[in-house]
Amino acid sequence: MKEKIPYKIYLNENEIPTQWYNVRADMKNKPAPLIHPGDGHALTIEEMNPIFCEELNKQELDNETRFFDIPEPVLEFYKMYRPSPLVRAYFLERALGTPAKIYYKFEGNNTSGSHKLNSSIAQAYYAKAQGLKGVTTETGAGQWGTALSMACAYFKLDCKVYMVKVSYEQKPFRREVMRTYGATVTPSPSNTTNIGKKILADHPGTGGSLGCAISEAVETAVSTPGYRYVLGSVLNQVLLHQSIIGLEAQAALKKFDIKPDILIGCLGGGSNFGGFAGPFLGEVLRGEANYKFIGVEPASCPSFTRGKFAYDFCDTGMICPLAKMYTLGSQFIPSANHAGGLRFHGISPILAQLYHDGYFEARAVEQTAVFDAAEQFARAEGILPAPESSHAIRVAIDEALKCKETGEEKTIVFNLSGTGYFDLVAYQQFNEGTMTDTIPSDEAIAEGLAKLPKVGNE
Amino acid sequence: MKEKIPYKIYLNENEIPTQWYNVRADMKNKPAPLIHPGDGHALTIEEMNPIFCEELNKQELDNETRFFDIPEPVLEFYKMYRPSPLVRAYFLERALGTPAKIYYKFEGNNTSGSHKLNSSIAQAYYAKAQGLKGVTTETGAGQWGTALSMACAYFKLDCKVYMVKVSYEQKPFRREVMRTYGATVTPSPSNTTNIGKKILADHPGTGGSLGCAISEAVETAVSTPGYRYVLGSVLNQVLLHQSIIGLEAQAALKKFDIKPDILIGCLGGGSNFGGFAGPFLGEVLRGEANYKFIGVEPASCPSFTRGKFAYDFCDTGMICPLAKMYTLGSQFIPSANHAGGLRFHGISPILAQLYHDGYFEARAVEQTAVFDAAEQFARAEGILPAPESSHAIRVAIDEALKCKETGEEKTIVFNLSGTGYFDLVAYQQFNEGTMTDTIPSDEAIAEGLAKLPKVGNE
Repeated sequence: MKEKIPYKIYLNENEIPTQWYNVRADMKNKPAPLIHPGDGHALTIEEMNPIFCEELNKQELDNETRFFDIPEPVLEFYKMYRPSPLVRAYFLERALGTPAKIYYKFEGNNTSGSHKLNSSIAQAYYAKAQGLKGVTTETGAGQWGTALSMACAYFKLDCKVYMVKVSYEQKPFRREVMRTYGATVTPSPSNTTNIGKKILADHPGTGGSLGCAISEAVETAVSTPGYRYVLGSVLNQVLLHQSIIGLEAQAALKKFDIKPDILIGCLGGGSNFGGFAGPFLGEVLRGEANYKFIGVEPASCPSFTRGKFAYDFCDTGMICPLAKMYTLGSQFIPSANHAGGLRFHGISPILAQLYHDGYFEARAVEQTAVFDAAEQFARAEGILPAPESSHAIRVAIDEALKCKETGEEKTIVFNLSGTGYFDLVAYQQFNEGTMTDTIPSDEAIAEGLAKLPKVGNE
Repeated sequence: MKEKIPYKIYLNENEIPTQWYNVRADMKNKPAPLIHPGDGHALTIEEMNPIFCEELNKQELDNETRFFDIPEPVLEFYKMYRPSPLVRAYFLERALGTPAKIYYKFEGNNTSGSHKLNSSIAQAYYAKAQGLKGVTTETGAGQWGTALSMACAYFKLDCKVYMVKVSYEQKPFRREVMRTYGATVTPSPSNTTNIGKKILADHPGTGGSLGCAISEAVETAVSTPGYRYVLGSVLNQVLLHQSIIGLEAQAALKKFDIKPDILIGCLGGGSNFGGFAGPFLGEVLRGEANYKFIGVEPASCPSFTRGKFAYDFCDTGMICPLAKMYTLGSQFIPSANHAGGLRFHGISPILAQLYHDGYFEARAVEQTAVFDAAEQFARAEGILPAPESSHAIRVAIDEALKCKETGEEKTIVFNLSGTGYFDLVAYQQFNEGTMTDTIPSDEAIAEGLAKLPKVGNE
């Protein structure tokens, strides 16, 4: 008889991967480089060094090296909360009555509440190693800001966080966790930067956006000696660090000889789907396997399903380099009643290229359907999921229900990237029936896309 | 060379204990029985059955059976979040510079955020097995209410929670988690019960207490057909279920041949310290080992260190049976500026008897010192602890610092019973320096003790 798969598959500590995987090494069509918004030339490391940490820039520009050694202090920190379990969703399967086998990689069992800690600790390490005094960043739903605060506390670095104002108000306790870890948190847009002042003047009463907050964080980093800017998603380096999720998932699946059919992750800036699916995409790129991948994005911020594959600013203030992404335009701001994160107008250039080349499907889902899945999951599996992760849950349940109809015993694996303990305002709206769906009009999408820069796109 | 102890010791799923341990079987002096407040006779199971579930009453009254089989459905549910890790606090040891070896059993990695789920799932199971429609309970900080909501959702039972009003207001999001799991939550004292109306009339503006909320929950249970009352601490049955913590800790320590010197847990109603320390106390009672035990209580609610070993009501409304406890009097209500839980005026009769017989030390600590330890722990170990658990952290750090002075390499093990994600109002007060200590005056203590009942104490 075949051994029963345990409820939770844990690797041993000595099985934690000691290298990150760089999917770019296996891509035939490499992701387009960051370019200068003035004349469109590809950014050099010398141009990037004043903004970002040097070692991270090397990782950012390296499309060839397949594996990067994880520095020893980062590996040690990983042991604080990793390996994370790969959970067999027996309880959810039973609740759905599906013949599908569902697994999830659970990245939420740490105080930052999400996978973001995987990259923040790496970035803080390189900042410290470079002798910096501190770092600046933006945060949307607060997961990244919390993760960076924890990492900076560990390496004794200053941490200045610009938090999207609507999230700052919806999630007052996120700020408190960051403060407990010694970070300073400013709601964005703010009066502490020139770009913040301008955005406030142009859009009084705005709830902010990730794009605004990025502009403010970058301005503060380049104007403060001893500081650099760090980013929790979108960049190649972030997908590199987050590959630890997919690598561990692969190792856990291998332990029990489990072959996935469908791999699912949510899509915001790309750290979640990219980190989880990246190593599996590598297998496909190398011709070693064949999986179905589904990236799930919010219908209120549909970068892949309604955006354009083009060069665009990463930030609303248009002071950052241009990246080639699927984008809704840097001026696009999702409706304030969109809960959770996943509110970035663009996406990781790596994922943009892979999507363009047909390696995965993107699916947009509405938030009431997402919270419906979240509640179903919470009651079955005993974990209150983050709204972001619940996008993946929604599609995992949909696919499992298809299996129920067809009788297929597919193996579905998704990334449960975080917990929803700081998203209770959104859960309250859902519980009280006041949550609405907000799908941008065709006009709003067209308006956003009309403002794409000419540089890089002509 | 001796094998290095891992950062986290996980048992395998098949190593989860399949029986609970009943410390009463090894006690020479058994805990005093619950008695009737009218004439002081020991309650019979027939008298208890209208209030509590029948199978739980059998457990409550059984002082002889050493081990109880854990029902299969409860064991399966345990696999959702157990085994919980025994963590070696390498990072904290380094931060303190102590030669002590510190371990903690981490019970917070589940959505209820604490160990309370261990007993709630057992109690919900027995209620369902008895064919009940629902259960009522009280909750202080919200951990127990959340745990019971999750358990009731799993077994499809109605769940009515009376939540201490001051916690209801400090922790709005706790209510939302309970609602997500389908429970109804009422701030206590409320107008939904006779006893609630009376308390409100006598003490307008009161923040409530666990004692008030118990009265309301019991009144609702006995006056609603198909309902029974369940309790998250104090009772013998709860310590029985919570023994899973200590049993797992023993198994994990044994795996690496680790011998503890000091065992530490916090003291509220007793489920935390009793569940963790119980199986180790059993070793001592049987003469097999010798450990130092420290129970830690808040200076604002010092049942052991300033209370009296006497029969008392478990509830403020004085409608419940009498239990022999260390008590501050059932009318004692801790200052509203005491954060966190551990606000019960009494304690488990089992622990009361063991303390009376000299088996452990009790120590009272002030809350600013507790939050100071909590923040130090969060920064070192990456886990934001619950205020309750932070009482144990405070004393673990104190003992580790003593080792630093003396050079002793003692092995300290404590119960990290929960996380503080819903306690951010208290963390905010601490971060902003507005948190104060509140030690009851001698007059307040004397006033509480003057109101002890005569029954059972003459």
